[in-house]
Amino acid sequence: MNDCLFCKIVKGEIPSEKVYEDEYSYAFLDIRPVNPGHVLLVPKQHFANLYEMSDDVLANLAPTIKKLGIAIKKAVGADGINVGMNNDSAAGQLVFHAHIHIMPRHKGDGHEHWHGTPYQNSETNKTATQIKAHL
Amino acid sequence: MNDCLFCKIVKGEIPSEKVYEDEYSYAFLDIRPVNPGHVLLVPKQHFANLYEMSDDVLANLAPTIKKLGIAIKKAVGADGINVGMNNDSAAGQLVFHAHIHIMPRHKGDGHEHWHGTPYQNSETNKTATQIKAHL
Repeated sequence: MNDCLFCKIVKGEIPSEKVYEDEYSYAFLDIRPVNPGHVLLVPKQHFANLYEMSDDVLANLAPTIKKLGIAIKKAVGADGINVGMNNDSAAGQLVFHAHIHIMPRHKGDGHEHWHGTPYQNSETNKTATQIKAHL
Repeated sequence: MNDCLFCKIVKGEIPSEKVYEDEYSYAFLDIRPVNPGHVLLVPKQHFANLYEMSDDVLANLAPTIKKLGIAIKKAVGADGINVGMNNDSAAGQLVFHAHIHIMPRHKGDGHEHWHGTPYQNSETNKTATQIKAHL
């Protein structure tokens, strides 16, 4: 897409610190890392988000997430790796070209995970039924 | 694995609120959801984490993440979907059978994203070089 920041990065029209590229994907350093070594993996083809991505592109990107996760962990001496993908602004998406965050973590780095809350009574079954109805 | 909680869930030895199952994967409600409708997708085969997963299983699970994300969003009327995977305890992994969180989000639900910090001077190029050396 003409006005898409990540399409421009993929085409080299906007500079990025590239770490990996193949037929399907392009990976580069996030300029505001949660820890140094935080990489964004994007499909070369423009998709706004997860919902729009083709199964073929998804299947080709998934092993690349593993490859990058292993390399980032070694490169920065991390204790763990978080993978994340935000879809829609309510989920924290800022650039509307699908992208996957691969983030190195260190013990005690202070990044807090969200807390969960148990379901009440029969809510689990009702929720599962609603999801199954949409599959 | 004999003592693995998620292997037991996949085999039906421990109950779960299942929403989806196919040859490669099993998906069920997280019992402590960040929002109702939070699903865990696991490979049926035991892998401790992302680094251990086979490319074949990764490629087969990725389109299922999309399918579940779309269904969950509709089912609970969410405004967005976060996908997350924690690898190693430093990254928040609690059960050591690889699993992918698919989490519905609502505007104003209060879940905060981690803040990033820009790199200093030539750190970006050094970091990218280190990662490329491990790929």
